[in-house]
Amino acid sequence: MAPKEEASSAANETPKKMATLQLQQQQQQQQQQQAKTHIPTCNYSKRVVLKTLLSREDRGVGLVGERIVIGGWVKSSKEVRKQPPLPQPDTLPQPGPKTGEKDVTCTEILQNRMPIFRTFLKLFGVGNHAEKDSLGGLAHRVQHPVFSTVFLQISDGSCISSLQVVVESTLAPPGQILLNGTCILVEGIIQPPSTGGKHSIEVKAEKVLHLGVVEDHEKYPLSKKRLPLHTLRDWAHFRPRTTTIASITRIRHALTQATHNFFQNNGFLYVQVPVITTTDSEGFNNKFNVTTLLNKTKSEEEPTKGSSRNEVISGVSLASIKASLKEKSHQVEELKRTDSNREALLAAIQDLKKTNELASQLEAKEKKEKAKTTSAMVKPDRLDFTDDFFSCQAFLTVSGRLHLESYACALGNVYSFGPRFKAQTSHSTRHVSEMWMAEAEMAFSELEEAMSCATDLLKHLCKWVLENCTEDMKFVLKRVDQSIVGRLQSVVSTNFEKIPYCKAIDILKQVREKKFELNVEWGVPLTEEHESYLADEIYKKPVIIYDYPKEVKPFYVRQNDDGKTVAAFDVIVPKVGAVIRGSQNEERVKVLRTRIKELGLSSEQYEWYLDLRRNGTAKHAGFSLTFDLIVLLATGISDIRDVIPFPRSYGKISN
Amino acid sequence: MAPKEEASSAANETPKKMATLQLQQQQQQQQQQQAKTHIPTCNYSKRVVLKTLLSREDRGVGLVGERIVIGGWVKSSKEVRKQPPLPQPDTLPQPGPKTGEKDVTCTEILQNRMPIFRTFLKLFGVGNHAEKDSLGGLAHRVQHPVFSTVFLQISDGSCISSLQVVVESTLAPPGQILLNGTCILVEGIIQPPSTGGKHSIEVKAEKVLHLGVVEDHEKYPLSKKRLPLHTLRDWAHFRPRTTTIASITRIRHALTQATHNFFQNNGFLYVQVPVITTTDSEGFNNKFNVTTLLNKTKSEEEPTKGSSRNEVISGVSLASIKASLKEKSHQVEELKRTDSNREALLAAIQDLKKTNELASQLEAKEKKEKAKTTSAMVKPDRLDFTDDFFSCQAFLTVSGRLHLESYACALGNVYSFGPRFKAQTSHSTRHVSEMWMAEAEMAFSELEEAMSCATDLLKHLCKWVLENCTEDMKFVLKRVDQSIVGRLQSVVSTNFEKIPYCKAIDILKQVREKKFELNVEWGVPLTEEHESYLADEIYKKPVIIYDYPKEVKPFYVRQNDDGKTVAAFDVIVPKVGAVIRGSQNEERVKVLRTRIKELGLSSEQYEWYLDLRRNGTAKHAGFSLTFDLIVLLATGISDIRDVIPFPRSYGKISN
Repeated sequence: MAPKEEASSAANETPKKMATLQLQQQQQQQQQQQAKTHIPTCNYSKRVVLKTLLSREDRGVGLVGERIVIGGWVKSSKEVRKQPPLPQPDTLPQPGPKTGEKDVTCTEILQNRMPIFRTFLKLFGVGNHAEKDSLGGLAHRVQHPVFSTVFLQISDGSCISSLQVVVESTLAPPGQILLNGTCILVEGIIQPPSTGGKHSIEVKAEKVLHLGVVEDHEKYPLSKKRLPLHTLRDWAHFRPRTTTIASITRIRHALTQATHNFFQNNGFLYVQVPVITTTDSEGFNNKFNVTTLLNKTKSEEEPTKGSSRNEVISGVSLASIKASLKEKSHQVEELKRTDSNREALLAAIQDLKKTNELASQLEAKEKKEKAKTTSAMVKPDRLDFTDDFFSCQAFLTVSGRLHLESYACALGNVYSFGPRFKAQTSHSTRHVSEMWMAEAEMAFSELEEAMSCATDLLKHLCKWVLENCTEDMKFVLKRVDQSIVGRLQSVVSTNFEKIPYCKAIDILKQVREKKFELNVEWGVPLTEEHESYLADEIYKKPVIIYDYPKEVKPFYVRQNDDGKTVAAFDVIVPKVGAVIRGSQNEERVKVLRTRIKELGLSSEQYEWYLDLRRNGTAKHAGFSLTFDLIVLLATGISDIRDVIPFPRSYGKISN
Repeated sequence: MAPKEEASSAANETPKKMATLQLQQQQQQQQQQQAKTHIPTCNYSKRVVLKTLLSREDRGVGLVGERIVIGGWVKSSKEVRKQPPLPQPDTLPQPGPKTGEKDVTCTEILQNRMPIFRTFLKLFGVGNHAEKDSLGGLAHRVQHPVFSTVFLQISDGSCISSLQVVVESTLAPPGQILLNGTCILVEGIIQPPSTGGKHSIEVKAEKVLHLGVVEDHEKYPLSKKRLPLHTLRDWAHFRPRTTTIASITRIRHALTQATHNFFQNNGFLYVQVPVITTTDSEGFNNKFNVTTLLNKTKSEEEPTKGSSRNEVISGVSLASIKASLKEKSHQVEELKRTDSNREALLAAIQDLKKTNELASQLEAKEKKEKAKTTSAMVKPDRLDFTDDFFSCQAFLTVSGRLHLESYACALGNVYSFGPRFKAQTSHSTRHVSEMWMAEAEMAFSELEEAMSCATDLLKHLCKWVLENCTEDMKFVLKRVDQSIVGRLQSVVSTNFEKIPYCKAIDILKQVREKKFELNVEWGVPLTEEHESYLADEIYKKPVIIYDYPKEVKPFYVRQNDDGKTVAAFDVIVPKVGAVIRGSQNEERVKVLRTRIKELGLSSEQYEWYLDLRRNGTAKHAGFSLTFDLIVLLATGISDIRDVIPFPRSYGKISN
């Protein structure tokens, strides 16, 4: 539209100027044409992702005049009341200044106008506003006599920025769309912002394609602005709608990419190690049992309730068929009672018969299946793992490194990336029961090389976030941690301090200004307190500590020649702690066997692991990186439960 | 070396020829120089990965004369005896024809010569050959009086091809290195192959840097050649050393890359959904319980054995400290008894005291910790989940789609890739208890779009394997499935057949030449038998079936307007079956609530899920791709347990 106006005003100018103008006009049109062909819709939806508009260099300005579909959730809103205009349901939107605008926040409007709304709704017989949730109820309210324009800031999670969407009250009832959290999908035209401010463009809605209202404003937790992170934890299913958790999720996503990217660039093969295992990989007692003994007991108690499904029959539920059977019987009874239509009755009876047949078939199949499992059913007073699903006690894996070794001792360098589990009852801001770890194992590598690989990985991850998450890091810098970028840059550029355990002990012993909870002495394990003192106070940069006393490290770590220390290392990062723990593992079968005996570990479970040493053993080293801690490191968030989508910890699980 | 020889032989030629030769020589030297700077070692090891040599266009020929370190496992070998030469332990290897070569296989040699070996070993007092596993024992055998050259085919898992390594018996005892599965790391010189055949180069060993022998040839399963896959399953920790499983692992790795690549290219965010959950996402009864009730009971029984570790103290084990304490006490006693050295005794006593102190500290900490967990301890005769770790019954997740929806209804398109669990007791070649799934969820998308996304993903994965796994696919084609490439190409290029469930039923009803186990009738779930008949026999290409009766699909699938069917779909691929199952999910809270009630599911667990519908609900669709089945599809392997690193199924778990 703009070029046309320019052209007409140019009509009185000299021919030369006109030619120039025409050229400019053509160029502009070309550019616009180009732009028009450059709004890719989200590949598997009609909508355009907001990032596509707002992350352009021109912040979408070149797309003015385009018709698009966009969808998202309301982050904030305001309503501007106006004099009732003539109804104009089908005309195109009229950009330009509006009359009677009032710049009030959503909350103010709601507080002030809720009674008025309620009165209107009652007058129109719509009933309790909070109970309406389908588009079916909208027709009434379209005739709402007070006309207004609603300005919504909507976000679709693709970027930090939100888009202003202008919706006239003739299209959707303001009382519904004004509420934070409302989902809206609209078709509209991109236009220059009508309200000024920071916006580069806005979308003037012409059709509301979908509306997902907030049923009860009071109960919806995100109605309140800026809830603290610890409160949001109770609403894990809603919190990705907040800017902070959305940013963390995108950064977490980028870090996942970076992790795979690092290993793949360095020739590591990805191996999916098992979650269910019988191997105690760290002599760690607090493991989760994986069992079917408990639910068997339960299903015995209530045999009719279980909706056991047979896998051969893809995705079918006997309970579901039975429910349908019941429903159909009712239908037949109803038809018999009313005697309304003989044909319909016959059809219904036929249908009922078929369903009945199906139910019998399924039931027979399930009985057969159940007969098989009977041997696994156990009364709780005679717990015997030979009756359990795997015929022995099985656990959730604590670490995948032992299984990875099996692949390293065949394929060279391998890595794994998956969930690991510890049933620890302590409350910590650094650990939960289920955490993701990236683990690497390298054949023909020794301690030094594992340390250097761990260092490179850590630097790679920090660099990746700085380079690929610019917008989100700006937000984190502003709202979470003002020193975050500097800290990440320092991890990328400084040489990590590398000290043996004995030196760490010597240094900590000399500390006078602090009394540690656990006394420092050669042989003690380093606590979080010790570790953070070294990284945060003394070196002020990442520290690698290596050659630990054998007593403080797992049985599989390679014994050094001194007979006292083992080739383990930890990478400690300021403010976050030990993000990587690694080691060269024992390749000598005799030493390994002695160590297992010394620790009183049940050697039977390690026979397969010892097998790897007995047959073609190789020197090898590796490490585990606690991925969730890396997200802490990258975001400056202080509690790990805020960077994990659905955190699980002692007594805490809600979905 | 080669260029120098050419130069000297050229000395008698004409000056012109000499100039040409000099030029050639220079060029060759330059090329060689270039080549010399182009053998990248494996990034975190001194060795060169075999792929680096053998995947070059010249198959390594340009690297002749280079000194390198390579490591791997012996796949096959032969020994060639020769007349005892003068001892030449430190001279460079002499390429050229060998005298007295005999082309015999390893097995022949072992069968024929084992008695001779044993006699020699006894003569030299080395003892039982099978018990020697360290390099320490080699010195004797280096003086073995029968000299021979050993030709080893070694593989390091980086590619299909193996490398010929030539080891003189003066460097390592043939009796040890000849055995399949032996691990060897050597420094040597690349030279043209001395035995001819298919090899482009070989490495003449100069130093054996590491030797990992096979302790007992009889017990090592891979000593036998070409074990069938089902036998290899009992040796999950060794089988990646076979060419087939190594190939599958590399293809699996490529497919993982391809999965992430697809979603990331299409703007999906990666979300790590939880493995431990309280939500029954499919009304599936056979779930694994996750509990600490069982091991608490066990640790109560044997309180002294458990090596419970406190997480605040990083990686330390009280049991380990106690073991060390015992050892040190013994030392002190021993020193007291022998009364040999007063100073040593004092030092030992001091050391013992310190360890004792540490043990007390740790014990105190652990007691504190235990006091906390006491409430969670339960006798098996009063199972009560309020006493369990999470204060309620928790399961291993069957599907992550419900949790993904929470993120989709905030961030748009999201995906997940992780392990999922079903405790099914049926034995199937298509399902095990722990499987990896890639799951996608898309806000503002409907059934049609989910089907198109699923189709694109499947085509992308097949295309990726064809383009990126050329060498491995050649092997698979030759040794596993001769039609594999054609099948994958057809998935990439054909349009999938798309039929509603009712049409599938009509077609199957007309089948006369086959009697299905479950009768075909509207309302029955499709079994594997039905599905494969449609894909393999009728359409002979991938088939998408959609609009299933609501009874055969989970509660969350969106109900169609007919009230009978739901917006679910399955993608069936010939020979493999349903690799993707997807649906548009119910966004209407009332319909969803009714469905949960109809099926008699406990609604309490779904409150958080219903919450998503009550507040800003959006239309959305998604699917689950069973990743392990895709590996079957890509490799032509018929049993899923052969493509999963450590498969777990009913009664089967060994590590």
